Amino acid sequence: MSLFDGLKNTDMRVKLPVVCFIWELAMIILFGVFIRYNPQADAHYIVNNSNTTYLNEFYFRYPSFQDVHVMIFVGFGFLMTFLQRYSFSAVGFNFLVAAFGIQWALLMQGWFGSLDYSTGKILIGVENLINADFCVASCLIAYGGVLGKTSPVQLMIMTLIGVTLYAVEEYIILTLLNVRDAGGSMVIHIFGAYYGLAISRVLYRPKLNQEKNGSVYHSDVFAMIGTLFLWLFWPSFNSAISNTGDGQHRAMINTYVSLSSSVVTAVAISSLTQKKGKLDMVHIQNATLAGGVAMGTASEMMVSCYGALIVGFCCGIISTLGFVYLTPLLESKLHIQDTCGIHNLHGMPGLIGGIVGAITAAAASEAVYSREGLVSLFNFNGAFANRSASTQGGYQAAGICIALAFGLVGGTVVGFILKLPFWGDAPNENCFEDNIYWE
Amino acid sequence: MSLFDGLKNTDMRVKLPVVCFIWELAMIILFGVFIRYNPQADAHYIVNNSNTTYLNEFYFRYPSFQDVHVMIFVGFGFLMTFLQRYSFSAVGFNFLVAAFGIQWALLMQGWFGSLDYSTGKILIGVENLINADFCVASCLIAYGGVLGKTSPVQLMIMTLIGVTLYAVEEYIILTLLNVRDAGGSMVIHIFGAYYGLAISRVLYRPKLNQEKNGSVYHSDVFAMIGTLFLWLFWPSFNSAISNTGDGQHRAMINTYVSLSSSVVTAVAISSLTQKKGKLDMVHIQNATLAGGVAMGTASEMMVSCYGALIVGFCCGIISTLGFVYLTPLLESKLHIQDTCGIHNLHGMPGLIGGIVGAITAAAASEAVYSREGLVSLFNFNGAFANRSASTQGGYQAAGICIALAFGLVGGTVVGFILKLPFWGDAPNENCFEDNIYWE
Amino acid sequence: MSLFDGLKNTDMRVKLPVVCFIWELAMIILFGVFIRYNPQADAHYIVNNSNTTYLNEFYFRYPSFQDVHVMIFVGFGFLMTFLQRYSFSAVGFNFLVAAFGIQWALLMQGWFGSLDYSTGKILIGVENLINADFCVASCLIAYGGVLGKTSPVQLMIMTLIGVTLYAVEEYIILTLLNVRDAGGSMVIHIFGAYYGLAISRVLYRPKLNQEKNGSVYHSDVFAMIGTLFLWLFWPSFNSAISNTGDGQHRAMINTYVSLSSSVVTAVAISSLTQKKGKLDMVHIQNATLAGGVAMGTASEMMVSCYGALIVGFCCGIISTLGFVYLTPLLESKLHIQDTCGIHNLHGMPGLIGGIVGAITAAAASEAVYSREGLVSLFNFNGAFANRSASTQGGYQAAGICIALAFGLVGGTVVGFILKLPFWGDAPNENCFEDNIYWE
Repeated sequence: MSLFDGLKNTDMRVKLPVVCFIWELAMIILFGVFIRYNPQADAHYIVNNSNTTYLNEFYFRYPSFQDVHVMIFVGFGFLMTFLQRYSFSAVGFNFLVAAFGIQWALLMQGWFGSLDYSTGKILIGVENLINADFCVASCLIAYGGVLGKTSPVQLMIMTLIGVTLYAVEEYIILTLLNVRDAGGSMVIHIFGAYYGLAISRVLYRPKLNQEKNGSVYHSDVFAMIGTLFLWLFWPSFNSAISNTGDGQHRAMINTYVSLSSSVVTAVAISSLTQKKGKLDMVHIQNATLAGGVAMGTASEMMVSCYGALIVGFCCGIISTLGFVYLTPLLESKLHIQDTCGIHNLHGMPGLIGGIVGAITAAAASEAVYSREGLVSLFNFNGAFANRSASTQGGYQAAGICIALAFGLVGGTVVGFILKLPFWGDAPNENCFEDNIYWE
Repeated sequence: MSLFDGLKNTDMRVKLPVVCFIWELAMIILFGVFIRYNPQADAHYIVNNSNTTYLNEFYFRYPSFQDVHVMIFVGFGFLMTFLQRYSFSAVGFNFLVAAFGIQWALLMQGWFGSLDYSTGKILIGVENLINADFCVASCLIAYGGVLGKTSPVQLMIMTLIGVTLYAVEEYIILTLLNVRDAGGSMVIHIFGAYYGLAISRVLYRPKLNQEKNGSVYHSDVFAMIGTLFLWLFWPSFNSAISNTGDGQHRAMINTYVSLSSSVVTAVAISSLTQKKGKLDMVHIQNATLAGGVAMGTASEMMVSCYGALIVGFCCGIISTLGFVYLTPLLESKLHIQDTCGIHNLHGMPGLIGGIVGAITAAAASEAVYSREGLVSLFNFNGAFANRSASTQGGYQAAGICIALAFGLVGGTVVGFILKLPFWGDAPNENCFEDNIYWE
Repeated sequence: MSLFDGLKNTDMRVKLPVVCFIWELAMIILFGVFIRYNPQADAHYIVNNSNTTYLNEFYFRYPSFQDVHVMIFVGFGFLMTFLQRYSFSAVGFNFLVAAFGIQWALLMQGWFGSLDYSTGKILIGVENLINADFCVASCLIAYGGVLGKTSPVQLMIMTLIGVTLYAVEEYIILTLLNVRDAGGSMVIHIFGAYYGLAISRVLYRPKLNQEKNGSVYHSDVFAMIGTLFLWLFWPSFNSAISNTGDGQHRAMINTYVSLSSSVVTAVAISSLTQKKGKLDMVHIQNATLAGGVAMGTASEMMVSCYGALIVGFCCGIISTLGFVYLTPLLESKLHIQDTCGIHNLHGMPGLIGGIVGAITAAAASEAVYSREGLVSLFNFNGAFANRSASTQGGYQAAGICIALAFGLVGGTVVGFILKLPFWGDAPNENCFEDNIYWE
């Protein structure tokens, strides 16, 4: 028993409202000081030429944005409802932290990426909203690692710091190093997974009551709602901020192809590793998505359809094997209790995605992309005008390490903050139970 | 006991088919006489210039239409599944009345707004379909007020008259008075809420059996499907019929921001008002949406992001407090039994939305909007060319009163019609039970 | 008892992984040899003119594609979760066969329709992805006919051969005969329904345990998720590959109108045919969709809104009557055990849709469509330049017969293949039970 156990008090009546109000008031003040509409959304810049109105960025990004938005709230939320008595917290706390997180992400990412230096204002439009959803996705991945063991106040803290770290990491990787990562295999999945795993490690509970850490029939069906909406809209996720035109088109196709392949191999390995060849719902709910994670970096590149198929093929296998063999080892050897198996769905496939992206970038040639295509896709302009494809490959690889480092170091620090005894997390015997936080 | 109780007969075998057939046959005849495709959907006006084909309104409204469509059928339908044994009726009767209502709305709204006077035909396209969904939304809001206590025949009557009233009210407010209400804080939410509350008041059941008027675990999870799809697609709802270009773009951003803020404050107040700080699922399912309702009028205006944040902040608080303190008072003092709490989710936030819209309109200046922006947004053309922003604010305020009056008077009249003893509503002891209408 | 019953072994541990791996490896090889991006998705053909980038087909088809994609995986998957203990298999095997099927469909349909003869490569883009979803839909319809009685290996075989047959049938009907069938009343629904019914006939189990062939309360609510997403996105389904501009616009409106009408009549007949006028969830889940099936062929034609309303009106009636009277007869007289009632939802409405399409085509005139509209809609170009509308009507009718023949003959052959004793289907007493294939 921990030194602090006597101090544990899961009553949220003061803590949670205080945190919510302070943070939301801070958002109002900061939005008031910093956030303005960008010209595409501002009445002042109205263009009366209808042809130009119809070229508003809204029409080229909004359908993708809505798909991503569904993934964040329905996809992640319902995917985590699989636990027998933790569905309210899964979908409800996911809702809370995502809704708060997107606000903070608009600010953090805005300071780094959308600041108008002449006025000191952040100018936002639909692309910022997509990026805010991306940023929050990394914190929701981390939530999957600690699901059932944390209080909503801890989740708010995890999200506040997670979004902050994400914005810095993203700025370093995408802007300073000019790494391409349209669907975020590195910046979203590697960072999010290792951030969550590091937190879970620090919060290790040796005497955790595992009795309720399982599903019932209908909770597994609810979780399939999450799985399917994630799976269906992942092509939108990986193409949402790609270059308009062929970039978005290709990113979507590659992701779709990769995902379809990982379904087939996830089923195969699930059957192969179970007694009597029966399928395990956990694998179907998670490993089928690995192909989408792993195409996060290379989706907009000319990775070719069969390349995407191979990536999905491998990730379906690796992810399922991870659930069967690695998750128990992580708990017994490394003391990491990974409730949703985020290491299998986001960690390993994210690493593979980063590597595939580095290789694909290094192999890019003018013969395949044309000179204009290469410049446009890899942004070989300005300071990066003289970068070669193989150099780009090296920077892509560096991106993997940076995302990993941010996740592990950040998560460890946050873990120790969350270990403080007054955040209201549940005692071991009440983990995975809604009724300590819900009427 | 009411005078009529001995006469109550919930057998629908004659009544329901008769109503359905008569009304659907009337639709066929009226569609045959009046409804035609508008030029954007008619083969006769084909334009061979591909650039023009690609400017078909379909491409600028259809994704928003589909989001709104999901809100009407999945959003409203599943939001009401929270009752333990009334999910079939919630989602099934919602389906029935919405499917009928959109047909009648195409006609009613068409006569007032899309009539080609030279031919006497109503010319429809995707925008009419969005407006039909909007119209039906007001009747589904009213359904929330009487959920569990009415027969499907009563709902069909409520919808027939509700759609009719809506079309008249909408014509007066939006066309005659040139009030702006893109997302319908007034025409949809105020009207719908007070229409439903007035009906509920007239149908007051003093001896209602409240035993089944509550949720079970999985019915609450089902309801979260409704909540999330409403929450996610509300930005599309409030921007669906705004001006193309910056209008739609801005309306979407404002709604998104307001909604994210009301989630945080709804959670805070829910925890603060409950014993031991536990959250109440009813608040999370409903009050989180209040920010979307309250941005219905001002969303397309230059309300600013922090303005939207403040609106969401306040509505999350007010709506949750309404559930805790006002709903019990409405029942005990005013004899209004509001099953879904529509007064908290649609009534009060709708009123706030109307007021916010009036203030924002009154404060509109050329400095912020530019002259062209102001004229375009508020339609200061033709008969309204000389209207000032502050006058517009006054008309906006008048819109609130008209919507309220239509709702209260119309609902009272409809309530007395529905009180007639032969519509097959359930006796007190069978309210909130599917098995009187479902196998 | 069948001769083979002693040999039945539902252990999938070898069979299922072997089939999955062999088929997926074949996909990788075939994709490597044949599949390339089409110019709209290839970096090499980048166009720097932003106006042209914005005319990328992606922007005109992708929102429709995503709607169709949701129908295939969430719509079909959840519609079949209605059985009390077969929800995992419904949604899980639907996921598996659809994910495999779309890959094989890209190849099969590509060879027939998107082959670049100069290079021997199939060039794919978003329209191919929509067509692959369409193709798979026919196999999922067939799955509905055998739900609860087949092993996943049998479903993989059914899909492999079904997709192959579909591609041939589609090529004959749409390309060789120049028949119009945008939403596939014939090529998808007639083929899929009779393919499934023929298989079900051959696999007839006289001593089938019907005890679990029914729903429980929450499984019916899950099924409504499928119903609603199918219903909502059917307008996208029927318009996804129509001509851009007015074609897509009109196809969407017609389908929307037809669907709304079939909801009302399905409810009416359900009430009329049940004791005490109670509604049957099976009818609401299925017959409400019949209007969408029946508009599959004529949706893009000038069928007029009231025409669409009449079609939906009739199909809602016929489909519901089919569930009440025909399904029991099919089992007792023809020995067809149609678990989901695909004959009522896809078979009969598909036939009606084909006939409506033939009549509408035959009646097409220049007065209504304009000459350009007629040529564009019916593709009266090249070899078909001299075809008259009435001739087109004849070809449309021929399409019905071809789809029917492919379904019946193909399904019979596949049925006998699936009857072989080593595919691992469940014995009679374990049909409709997840626990033989799921942990």
